[in-house]
Amino acid sequence: MMTVTTLLKEIADVGRDGVRGGYTRPVYSSAETELREWFRAAAHSRGLGVETDRNGVIWAWWGEPQDGALVTGSHLDSVPGGGAFDGPLGVASALSAIDHLRQRGVQPSRSIAAVVFPEEEGSRFGVACLGSRLMTGAIDPDRARALTDAEGRTFADVAAANGLDPAHIGHDPSGLARIGQFIELHVEQGRGLGQCGPSVAVGDSVLGHGRWRFLLSGQGNHAGTTLMEDRRDPMIVAAKIILAVQRLATSTPQARATVGRILPVPGGTNVIASRVELWLDVRHPDDLVTADLVQRINDAAAAAAAEEGCDCVLIEESLSPTVHLDPALRARMALALPDGRVLDTGAGHDAAILAAVVPSGMLFTRNAEGISHSPEEHVEDADAEAGAAVLADVLEALL
Amino acid sequence: MMTVTTLLKEIADVGRDGVRGGYTRPVYSSAETELREWFRAAAHSRGLGVETDRNGVIWAWWGEPQDGALVTGSHLDSVPGGGAFDGPLGVASALSAIDHLRQRGVQPSRSIAAVVFPEEEGSRFGVACLGSRLMTGAIDPDRARALTDAEGRTFADVAAANGLDPAHIGHDPSGLARIGQFIELHVEQGRGLGQCGPSVAVGDSVLGHGRWRFLLSGQGNHAGTTLMEDRRDPMIVAAKIILAVQRLATSTPQARATVGRILPVPGGTNVIASRVELWLDVRHPDDLVTADLVQRINDAAAAAAAEEGCDCVLIEESLSPTVHLDPALRARMALALPDGRVLDTGAGHDAAILAAVVPSGMLFTRNAEGISHSPEEHVEDADAEAGAAVLADVLEALL
Repeated sequence: MMTVTTLLKEIADVGRDGVRGGYTRPVYSSAETELREWFRAAAHSRGLGVETDRNGVIWAWWGEPQDGALVTGSHLDSVPGGGAFDGPLGVASALSAIDHLRQRGVQPSRSIAAVVFPEEEGSRFGVACLGSRLMTGAIDPDRARALTDAEGRTFADVAAANGLDPAHIGHDPSGLARIGQFIELHVEQGRGLGQCGPSVAVGDSVLGHGRWRFLLSGQGNHAGTTLMEDRRDPMIVAAKIILAVQRLATSTPQARATVGRILPVPGGTNVIASRVELWLDVRHPDDLVTADLVQRINDAAAAAAAEEGCDCVLIEESLSPTVHLDPALRARMALALPDGRVLDTGAGHDAAILAAVVPSGMLFTRNAEGISHSPEEHVEDADAEAGAAVLADVLEALL
Repeated sequence: MMTVTTLLKEIADVGRDGVRGGYTRPVYSSAETELREWFRAAAHSRGLGVETDRNGVIWAWWGEPQDGALVTGSHLDSVPGGGAFDGPLGVASALSAIDHLRQRGVQPSRSIAAVVFPEEEGSRFGVACLGSRLMTGAIDPDRARALTDAEGRTFADVAAANGLDPAHIGHDPSGLARIGQFIELHVEQGRGLGQCGPSVAVGDSVLGHGRWRFLLSGQGNHAGTTLMEDRRDPMIVAAKIILAVQRLATSTPQARATVGRILPVPGGTNVIASRVELWLDVRHPDDLVTADLVQRINDAAAAAAAEEGCDCVLIEESLSPTVHLDPALRARMALALPDGRVLDTGAGHDAAILAAVVPSGMLFTRNAEGISHSPEEHVEDADAEAGAAVLADVLEALL
């Protein structure tokens, strides 16, 4: 019987980011690959049968692989400079919950699988939940194969280098048939449980969200010799967009909109940028409001570009509607909790992608400060252990 | 006798940047090292004696090394995605001018040296004209040794890996004594000669300029779960600074101020940045105005940071006062020109650093569109050849 804390300690040194702090574990980096190996070894040591499917999802089976199994898990990849819990907490809790069930002497009436999804964060190839999107057919495999990372490598090449056949990624009906129910435990990423709430809540809806990329182009030139009035500087357009994003999102109740990534080209101190790429993340419970907000941001961007004599193009990288997790499953899960607290989440999750085709639910483990996607993300040991025990309770109730 | 065009063609494939376009040749990169080797080989093939001094400046001697020699040259490093001429034009023109003088049968009454200065752009270690600053003692060698590139390597380490003794970089009185006069030919980087002007002008003053870096820090967090009103987002501060820079510089006659480089950390699409680094380039003919403008920008930055609950620190990376090139030398050079056009420049140059201790002058070769620090930087072949011929005329007149 291993505790969640012990499991997470085993990987505490993998993928630490000396510059940003926290962890940088992009999918199929050496760090994330090491975590995948760690998961396989942890499964083997428990006598679980391990297989990696055509989309790179790792399955660890208690019992024979079968249709309609009870499946739980999360992801191991991280954002740049992320925390220790976003992803790995759900994977470690899945393993620990299996230990709990065995310790309790539970004889499962059907097989249970612990799973790891690849590229949940989209921090390498730009599309969040890429593994579950491929599995469910939510992304065209041609588009997925052509996605590139910051170094220009395609997903097809990286997948091939990691043992997948890029020709066979995509919709996986037989894999999906194996999921009777999917339960993802995840660190809570807001203050929904706060300082005084229970250790665990059940997920209700997952906020709709999308990612867009602005391509701004102007005239690259010398910073010393080009007069202010002769400039067509796309950095000015970028700055106006960033402020428009804040202004428009703040005046739209329940909206969250963020620019956390920007890349001026060429990016020299003494050079007026010739172009700027700028990424936009927008979320709202009402998908129509999301679309309207992005439209208003784009209008503001077009006006700013026109003022500066620059060009502005907006590209949608991904868009997920608001997802309501399976109500029946949610109700059964809530009954297994000491305090049947129910929470919405503003973060995207593989469970929300799978929810379109299989009954899916989520559990959130308390994060008092609500900080996530940051080295300061924190879960108390007692809450982590309570989360795994609740996950075991839920699995036992669903068997 | 080799033309400038032929010489530049020899290096036309070195350090091309497939992403940004143009050339990326940071000092001591494989591309810039290849250019240095090319220069040494070109000098050898002309029977010039080559030496590299303690600061990495390469000298190619026509005649024995001696005090009071006539020295001409420029640099080979580039900004990221720079043009083909900024730097290499002056180096190729120096070699071609020597060919001209020999073809004319000139017997120099004193030695002539063609030189290459390292890290003129400051695009790797952040301090422009690092080679000439070290030589003249304008930068403390301890500070230079500790400068780091984007990968965290120190200048001391990189210099050592390139054959220098980092303990012996710095003020070089005997090297300076060898420079009777220094003439740097450079591509013009504004529209001073335009479509209809002469091929070459003589430099007058070099605009004072400096580089500063803002360190903005807030609270990194999840883009989906953190409400707009709970954020302390340093990207908002960065955007306000970029707009303040434009507004304050535009309202200050003759000022140029630019933000061409920005780095959010961690830099994920779905992450509110925890900190942002932002670089500022400011130039003005009056050094007091430069200082005042930077102060007003910093005041605006501090106000923006306070509004967002962020911290803001401003660090000066380099500062060079406006330099008036040697008036006597300028007058003698102007006499050697078909049209005695005189130009100021907003760009920094090694000649402006050397001007503090040795008589220094500049020639500018026409660049009709005035575009520089860009793949679109362009010099007509005829202007490039006219530039080298004028440089030869000037050298002959000064012998």
